[in-house]
Amino acid sequence: MKLATYQDGSRDGQLLVVSRDLSRAHFATGTATRLQQVLDDWNFLSPQLEDLYATLNDGKARHAFDFDPRRCMAPLPRALQWADGSAFVNHVELVRRARGAEMPASFREDPLMYQGGSDDFLGPCDDAVFGSADWGIDFESEVAVVTGDVLMGATPETALESVRLLMLVNDWSLRNLIPAELAKGFGFLQSKPATAFGPVAVTPDELGSAWRGGRVHLELASVWNGRRVGLCSAGEEMTFHFGQLIAHLAKTRRVRAGSIVGSGTVSNRDWSRGYSCIAEKRAIETIESGAPQTAFMQFGDTIRIEMNGDDGQSVFGAIEQRVVARAA
Amino acid sequence: MKLATYQDGSRDGQLLVVSRDLSRAHFATGTATRLQQVLDDWNFLSPQLEDLYATLNDGKARHAFDFDPRRCMAPLPRALQWADGSAFVNHVELVRRARGAEMPASFREDPLMYQGGSDDFLGPCDDAVFGSADWGIDFESEVAVVTGDVLMGATPETALESVRLLMLVNDWSLRNLIPAELAKGFGFLQSKPATAFGPVAVTPDELGSAWRGGRVHLELASVWNGRRVGLCSAGEEMTFHFGQLIAHLAKTRRVRAGSIVGSGTVSNRDWSRGYSCIAEKRAIETIESGAPQTAFMQFGDTIRIEMNGDDGQSVFGAIEQRVVARAA
Repeated sequence: MKLATYQDGSRDGQLLVVSRDLSRAHFATGTATRLQQVLDDWNFLSPQLEDLYATLNDGKARHAFDFDPRRCMAPLPRALQWADGSAFVNHVELVRRARGAEMPASFREDPLMYQGGSDDFLGPCDDAVFGSADWGIDFESEVAVVTGDVLMGATPETALESVRLLMLVNDWSLRNLIPAELAKGFGFLQSKPATAFGPVAVTPDELGSAWRGGRVHLELASVWNGRRVGLCSAGEEMTFHFGQLIAHLAKTRRVRAGSIVGSGTVSNRDWSRGYSCIAEKRAIETIESGAPQTAFMQFGDTIRIEMNGDDGQSVFGAIEQRVVARAA
Repeated sequence: MKLATYQDGSRDGQLLVVSRDLSRAHFATGTATRLQQVLDDWNFLSPQLEDLYATLNDGKARHAFDFDPRRCMAPLPRALQWADGSAFVNHVELVRRARGAEMPASFREDPLMYQGGSDDFLGPCDDAVFGSADWGIDFESEVAVVTGDVLMGATPETALESVRLLMLVNDWSLRNLIPAELAKGFGFLQSKPATAFGPVAVTPDELGSAWRGGRVHLELASVWNGRRVGLCSAGEEMTFHFGQLIAHLAKTRRVRAGSIVGSGTVSNRDWSRGYSCIAEKRAIETIESGAPQTAFMQFGDTIRIEMNGDDGQSVFGAIEQRVVARAA
């Protein structure tokens, strides 16, 4: 099942069911108006949406209309939790190596994860607005899951069963603000501005056999200013699967329905696959030649992030954003 | 105006208006069922609740009933954002001094703030459940504000105008998990479990002249196992006022209605005022005698946090929690 949220002037938007090929959509009004409602009462409401999804895919939904991702908000336009892992340890290792630091061996057993802001997400085609290009504007292409309720102390296996939906993420990062902020010791705050999400959230069964072992075994394409800079495998090299990431979050507290847990920047050891964030490209340049050559994003730059299924069709639709200066 | 949320089996509970003396209450059903709804549409809905509040205080509300804080959830049982400052720099300085570290001078100009989890808050009388007493269980008595919408780049003055409500907070902390977690560089996650809030949220006018300069000029009492261990002034020594804390959060992104921003542990230079968290007591002991003497909380311990107004009456009602072991 594929779900999206249309702008309607409200803070939470209007829930839609979208056809598998992303061509057609139908309001979910008869069942729920907001995605969080469905997550709050998943076992009761999701079968109703699955029925509508089947009817829509059969071309038999009576009030269907063409789906337009430009009208989308994030599937959850605001959420109760956004916790982003850094599960592709290769990324962490590269960035550290570039600044001459070793990665602690424990990073392969104990996930890195930060708590992000979740009050204001960007839709897939929303402008990304920043106060200054000096902030070091960077995209981060990732995958995330939306959970149901998880008990404190849940095992990775139990935690994995809580996965309700998968989403595509652009975890905007302000690289030049990060060193000073992390040096203060309390983690990211200003250096992680509003995060963007792909047009539709999908249930894991939509991925078929590409969803296995708690990982998404598909390639994630990142296209910067029209040039494909990354086609990275989001599966094998994910050191921690989503069940492990959720269990990490649930170690000392319950995790409640509608929590979003991210994979962190998708990254592969094979550099020929390109990159899912500019920071990694700069790290590779630094390792190879002593200094970064590629600049971060400028106002007017565009980024497109998309993932195709085994059938070659777009799973989530595309994130397509432009970097824009805040009005003075 | 004072607002609370009663348990009703739902995730967001049922909104109440509570009388100034906390004796009587009335469901807000005619206006809104959830506090977030009111924050989403504050200018339209809050005057209706103010009318009900006036009627309730006059003893003329027809369906009023006795208010019972034990039936309360957190005023916002789950929220879109919980960002906690560390605005009492004295606390930061003490804890650092105890471990032989200086506090950077910049900490007096640039607030420390961490992004917390907001998907699962505790009510004022909810048990605080932990997996192990070895985690180093500690309370933190604080004050927090709930904001309206704030634009990216807002000034501290504008940000201060967004304050809708004030709340009492127990920011539970797991001290023995903090060093290893902060050493990883991404901030708190497991070391900050579910946060608890006082029974009622109040509009700033309820504090009269005690709310000035973006600070709460009242004393915060912390009572551990029946013994008052702190009566700290929450005003003068708050290095950053709430407008500055909100503006810090809004530097690179919008802050949306219903965001909760905390003061951090209330702390005074005069040690005779006691403490608002055990970590600070242990820091003082370390500075005085080379080692901490006071142990963190054990299962069965209780904590009571309360703040009286200039009239001697409880402003928010009391947080009264017991530390409990997670069922095996």
